[in-house]
Amino acid sequence: MPAPGGARAVARCDMLGVSPYTDMKDGLYRGWLSPAYRAAQEVVTGWMEEAGMTTRRDAATNLIGRYEGLNPGPALLIGSHIDSVRDGGRYDGPLGVMLGVECVATLHAATRRMPFPIEVIAFGDEEGSRFPAAMLTSRAAAGTLAEMPDMADAQGTPLALALASFGTAPERLADARHAPALAYLEAHIEQGPALETEGLALGVVTGIAAQLRLRLVLEGRAGHAGTTAMPLRRDALAAAAEIVLEVERVGRDRPDELVATVGTLEVEPGAANVIPGRVTLSLDIRALDPALRDLAAQAILDEADAIAARRLVTIRTLPIHDLPASPCDPRLTRILTEALIAAGHPPRRLASGAGHDAMAMAALCPTAMLFVRCRGGLSHNPAEHVEVVDVEAALAVMLGFIDRLEAVHV
Amino acid sequence: MPAPGGARAVARCDMLGVSPYTDMKDGLYRGWLSPAYRAAQEVVTGWMEEAGMTTRRDAATNLIGRYEGLNPGPALLIGSHIDSVRDGGRYDGPLGVMLGVECVATLHAATRRMPFPIEVIAFGDEEGSRFPAAMLTSRAAAGTLAEMPDMADAQGTPLALALASFGTAPERLADARHAPALAYLEAHIEQGPALETEGLALGVVTGIAAQLRLRLVLEGRAGHAGTTAMPLRRDALAAAAEIVLEVERVGRDRPDELVATVGTLEVEPGAANVIPGRVTLSLDIRALDPALRDLAAQAILDEADAIAARRLVTIRTLPIHDLPASPCDPRLTRILTEALIAAGHPPRRLASGAGHDAMAMAALCPTAMLFVRCRGGLSHNPAEHVEVVDVEAALAVMLGFIDRLEAVHV
Repeated sequence: MPAPGGARAVARCDMLGVSPYTDMKDGLYRGWLSPAYRAAQEVVTGWMEEAGMTTRRDAATNLIGRYEGLNPGPALLIGSHIDSVRDGGRYDGPLGVMLGVECVATLHAATRRMPFPIEVIAFGDEEGSRFPAAMLTSRAAAGTLAEMPDMADAQGTPLALALASFGTAPERLADARHAPALAYLEAHIEQGPALETEGLALGVVTGIAAQLRLRLVLEGRAGHAGTTAMPLRRDALAAAAEIVLEVERVGRDRPDELVATVGTLEVEPGAANVIPGRVTLSLDIRALDPALRDLAAQAILDEADAIAARRLVTIRTLPIHDLPASPCDPRLTRILTEALIAAGHPPRRLASGAGHDAMAMAALCPTAMLFVRCRGGLSHNPAEHVEVVDVEAALAVMLGFIDRLEAVHV
Repeated sequence: MPAPGGARAVARCDMLGVSPYTDMKDGLYRGWLSPAYRAAQEVVTGWMEEAGMTTRRDAATNLIGRYEGLNPGPALLIGSHIDSVRDGGRYDGPLGVMLGVECVATLHAATRRMPFPIEVIAFGDEEGSRFPAAMLTSRAAAGTLAEMPDMADAQGTPLALALASFGTAPERLADARHAPALAYLEAHIEQGPALETEGLALGVVTGIAAQLRLRLVLEGRAGHAGTTAMPLRRDALAAAAEIVLEVERVGRDRPDELVATVGTLEVEPGAANVIPGRVTLSLDIRALDPALRDLAAQAILDEADAIAARRLVTIRTLPIHDLPASPCDPRLTRILTEALIAAGHPPRRLASGAGHDAMAMAALCPTAMLFVRCRGGLSHNPAEHVEVVDVEAALAVMLGFIDRLEAVHV
C-alpha cells in the first residue's frame, strides 16, 4: 500500500511548530489548555474531517476523530499527544497523531472500511509541562484517573479555570473514560539513539520501563570554608558527590537493562565560602524489569545510607513516584513486528525508557507502539528531527498492522 | 587594669542584633548602606562620643571615632566591621568595634592620654553580603581600592544610588584613604573551634591565609534520563561529583595547613528526568603558605582536566579572586603575645582561615589581631556566641597592648 501521506504528516508537525500553534515567541511550547493548544485542536479537527472522520471532544478535552467501520463494536484507537515541553521539538507527540490521521486518510481515499471503527485521539496532557501532573488526559480516557487534587500552573492559574474555558471541570475529567476498545496503537519518535546507531528507521516497542523517582535530602553541618579544618567537616555536598557516583556505577553495571540518573541537585546555603550544610537531589531509576529496578534502587539507597553514616550526615528519602512497567501486548506486538518485516525492515524490538500515553491506555485495552528513528536521539529540544522517508515507512507499517488486525479480527 | 567594659561590649553587640539594627524580620542581617546599617552607625556614633571621641565618616562611609593623644602624629587604629552576612550572628565584626570603644572608654574614664591618637573604625563592607565585592571599605581606607566597577545588589539597586544616600559615590570611595597610621589592631571571634577545643579564651593571629577562589564550568550533554543508555552519556554532574571528591581529598592530605571547599554547585537544565548538561561550581582554597595553596589548586585543576577529558566533558576555569596571604606584623604580634602572657593566658598563636579587614589594612600599616573563643567554633549563624568573661579578658589584653605600644613608641 503506497504511503505518500508521510510527507504530509511531517509538514503538518512542522506547521504546528509555529504561530499560532506555540505559546513561545522564539521556540515551541504548547501547554495543555493554552491558546496554542486550542488553535492546534482547531486545525487538527479540520484535518481529521478532511480525512473522513467525525470529530468530538471528550470531558478531558481530548480531541477524537472517528472513522466508522463495517460493523459497530470496539474501535481501534490510534493516538499520541499534542502538548509539548517548554522549548521542545515538533515531533514528540504530534507525529503519532498525524500518522493516525494519515492512516485513516489512506483508507478513506481508497473508500475502504475496516470491520471495526478507527478512532484517532489527540491527547492533551502527556508531558505534564504546565500543571504538576502528567498523562492526565490519557489516564482519564483509560478510566484510571482517581480524584483530582487541586492544582495551579506556574502562573497561578487554577486547573478548574483553564478547564472551564474548554467546557469541563476537574471533577468531570473521569467522565472521559473511553468505551472498551479493540486496541491502542501509538507511533512516536524514539527519543534515544538506538535505531540511528544501528541504521534502522523503525522499531517495535516491547514495553515501557518501570520508573522510580525519589528525592534524597542530606543534612550535614554548614560552616565557614576558611576556618573549619577538613577533619571536622560534615560536608553534605561531598556525601552527595559519592552518591551521584554510586548511582552512575549501579546504572553502568547493567547498561542494557537499566538507567539511573541524578538530574537535580541543590546546595544550601550555597555560598562559595560556606561548607554545604544541606543537599537535596533527585534520583530517577528505570528498567523494563521492575524487580531489577527495585534491586538497583535498594543497592543505591543502602550504599547512600552507608556513605551518610560514615560522614556523620543524615539522609532522608522521599518518594516522588513509582510507575510500574507497562509491557506492550505480546499479540499486538507480534502483529506489528510482522508488518515491519513485511515492509522490508529488520525485526528490531526495543524497550522504551520514556513514559507514553500507551502506558496509561494499557489499562483500557491491549497496546502496541512503533518507534521512529530521530536524529541524534534528540528530543525535548528544538533540534528534534525526523526524516520524511522514515515517517513514510512508519505509515506503511501502521497500515500493514491495520490490515493484519482485520485478518485476526474477522 | 580592670576591664568591666567587656560586659557592655557584649550587651551592645546583642542590642545591634535586634530592630532597628537588622534588616531581617526574624534574624540578623545588616547589609552595607541599608537602613539597619544607618541606624547602627547612629547608635555607635553616640557610644563613641560618650567614650570621649570625636566622630566623622569617611568617603567610603566608614565611621571613625578619634581620641586625641598627647602628641599629634600617626594614630593607633582599632577596628572591625559592622555589616553582617544574611542570617548571621551578633559578634562577627561588631565585637571588635565595641572592644575598640571600650579601650578608649577605659582610658577616658581614667583621664589618660597616650602619646599617639587612637581612632576606632567601624568598617562598612567586610562580608560582601550585599554587593558582589568584599572588604571594599577597608580597602578604600588602606588606599588599595582600584577603580570601582559598576555593580548592583540582588534587588537591582545600583551601588551609586546606595552611596548617594550616604553623601558619597563609587568614584569617591578611594578618597577614604587614611593618613599614615602607627598600627591597626583588630579583635574578632575565632570562627573556628581551635581555642574552644584547647580550653583557651584568646589567641594571637599570626596571619591570614592566602585565598584562591575559582569558578569551574563543566559542559557535557543534556539528554532524556529514560532513553539515553548509560554508556552514551556525557553527564556533567557525574564529572562534577568526581571533582568535589578530589577537592576534599587534596584538602584532607594537609589537614593542618590547607582547606579546600566546593560551596556552590548549580545543575542545568535541572530536571529529574534530564541528564545534567552543564554544572557550575565554586572552588575555594586557603592556606597560610601561598605556595602550598597554589600547589593544591594546581593538583585539583590537573585532576579536574583529566576527569573531564575521560568523560568527554569540557571544562572552563574562571578566576574569581586571588588574595595573597597576609602575615600579621611580627613586632606587633610579639607585643600582643606579651600582653597575653602578662594577663595570665598561654601564648597560643594561630592562623586565620577567614579574611578580615586587617588583611586589607596591612597595606597601610603594621597589623595585629586577637581571636576570641566562640562557642562550637560557629559563625555566620544565629547561634554565634561568646562568653562575657572571654570578652573581658580580650579587653584587658588590648589595653595591655596599648600600654606596651606606648613604651615602644616613646
